[in-house]
Amino acid sequence: MSAHFDPKIRKALDAALPPLRERAERALETALPAAGAHPARLHEAMRYAVLGGGKRMRPVLVYATGSALGEDGEALDAPAAAVEMVHAYSLVHDDLPAMDDDDWRRGRETCHRAYDEPTAILVGDALQSLAFETLSSDAAPAAPAPARAEMARTLARAIGSRGMAGGQALDLAAVGRRIDAAELEDMHIHKTGALIRASVQLGALACGTASEAAFSALDRYAKCVGLAFQIQDDVLDVAGDSDALGKAQGADAAREKPTYPSILGLEASRDLAERLAGDAIDALSELGPGADPLRGLAAYCIERRA
Amino acid sequence: MSAHFDPKIRKALDAALPPLRERAERALETALPAAGAHPARLHEAMRYAVLGGGKRMRPVLVYATGSALGEDGEALDAPAAAVEMVHAYSLVHDDLPAMDDDDWRRGRETCHRAYDEPTAILVGDALQSLAFETLSSDAAPAAPAPARAEMARTLARAIGSRGMAGGQALDLAAVGRRIDAAELEDMHIHKTGALIRASVQLGALACGTASEAAFSALDRYAKCVGLAFQIQDDVLDVAGDSDALGKAQGADAAREKPTYPSILGLEASRDLAERLAGDAIDALSELGPGADPLRGLAAYCIERRA
Repeated sequence: MSAHFDPKIRKALDAALPPLRERAERALETALPAAGAHPARLHEAMRYAVLGGGKRMRPVLVYATGSALGEDGEALDAPAAAVEMVHAYSLVHDDLPAMDDDDWRRGRETCHRAYDEPTAILVGDALQSLAFETLSSDAAPAAPAPARAEMARTLARAIGSRGMAGGQALDLAAVGRRIDAAELEDMHIHKTGALIRASVQLGALACGTASEAAFSALDRYAKCVGLAFQIQDDVLDVAGDSDALGKAQGADAAREKPTYPSILGLEASRDLAERLAGDAIDALSELGPGADPLRGLAAYCIERRA
Repeated sequence: MSAHFDPKIRKALDAALPPLRERAERALETALPAAGAHPARLHEAMRYAVLGGGKRMRPVLVYATGSALGEDGEALDAPAAAVEMVHAYSLVHDDLPAMDDDDWRRGRETCHRAYDEPTAILVGDALQSLAFETLSSDAAPAAPAPARAEMARTLARAIGSRGMAGGQALDLAAVGRRIDAAELEDMHIHKTGALIRASVQLGALACGTASEAAFSALDRYAKCVGLAFQIQDDVLDVAGDSDALGKAQGADAAREKPTYPSILGLEASRDLAERLAGDAIDALSELGPGADPLRGLAAYCIERRA
């Protein structure tokens, strides 16, 4: 393990993570319509898709960015809920029969299996809308209107055709084809990196106090963490444990999806993820101990088993 | 034909409609990424879905609302493009095999037929994001930030689970089932009414000059026009002409979808649409001749043949 990962930092994260995850759950619970709200089946399915567990990595990044900037105001809750709703929508659509055709997710049936395919399509569509509704809501405690407009623009750009949705298109186009490491990186920068980067940007925008230097350091951090996170996902798909993953280990390989281990080999992939996590931590060198949860998250990214 | 439909008003609309439609095309062309932009196939498919014709009813409503408020500033272009991109996304997803399974739309192959199903899912997803990106962009000539945040919130609420996406869920749940006029109206208020209402609200928000009374009159207008438009859609499905429609006449009936003619009968449906169009025009009584394009659109809604 690299010298970057000071045990103090891991301890800071271990203490910070459970309350931040709980806060994310509460923010999501508040933002989602009640299960009985009309039309009830759609709302029930939306709650199934969002509240079914998950690491809550993206909202935790929003809160940890706030902490790095010395803020923990409730204005962080809207962007935290929004990025996780977008993540949940993307999983629901990626799992569809026409896409990855997955039956299991987080140890439970995927949305189109638990409900049906049209409902799953609408769940994804409506979760995307709800993310923007939550982000731009003026219900207190909201960020000021200019920050809300900028957050909506930032999220929209990150998840559209030049971001996350574009990455999924690149992913589908790569199945069964030989691609090189540069193409794979390009795909991941879009598919998962853009939303992780947006999570950090939204956290900073909601605070409204980041200097240009801090904003750009946080952005460097987010780019490295996003890629490290994805490489570790690929590593776990090869070397992980299906029970811990809640889905079949080896699923990407079986589908002939290019992965980092298939292109670089397993050890080189692990090394790369570790180097990126170290770079992420280095990017935060000008920030004080408030950034320890972010530092810990970089270490968590590559040490996690699921 | 009702006394409401002054020939002067139709003439005002006939003069206003072609330039407003052209303006909508230009706004869409500007907002959409170039076909060659990376990832190219997705962008090409997005352009196919959006630029393939259509009545451009929603952006025209945005511009006509501006005209009613004495504004024709370029800040209307972003909401005009946004509402049409949302409309196009909803058509692409509604046409999917898991939803309405339609092969034809506007006389051309539907997006999943011209491309493939995963691409069509992503086209819809990315068009929704692009709508919010366009709406919240600060690139000149944009509305002020508070108006942009409020437009994003208004659009998001209108198209999510309590609006358009919820309406599509109600529509799917109604197939093959007997529903009454109240349930049908509830479905349409969500499925098509909410976005039409949002188009008028966004037009007013972009202007930023509407008094509370004008805003509420415009909203009454939009509610009536939205329902009249949908009833006429149902009437055309029964009594229209497939060539003019660009899709199969009788498609709803064949699919056992409840429609106004199937519940109220054809004549009563026509009468209701005409009464609603009249109510829409009446709602504008306090507005001057700048509102004539809106008045003309109410008449157009029920006189159109496609």
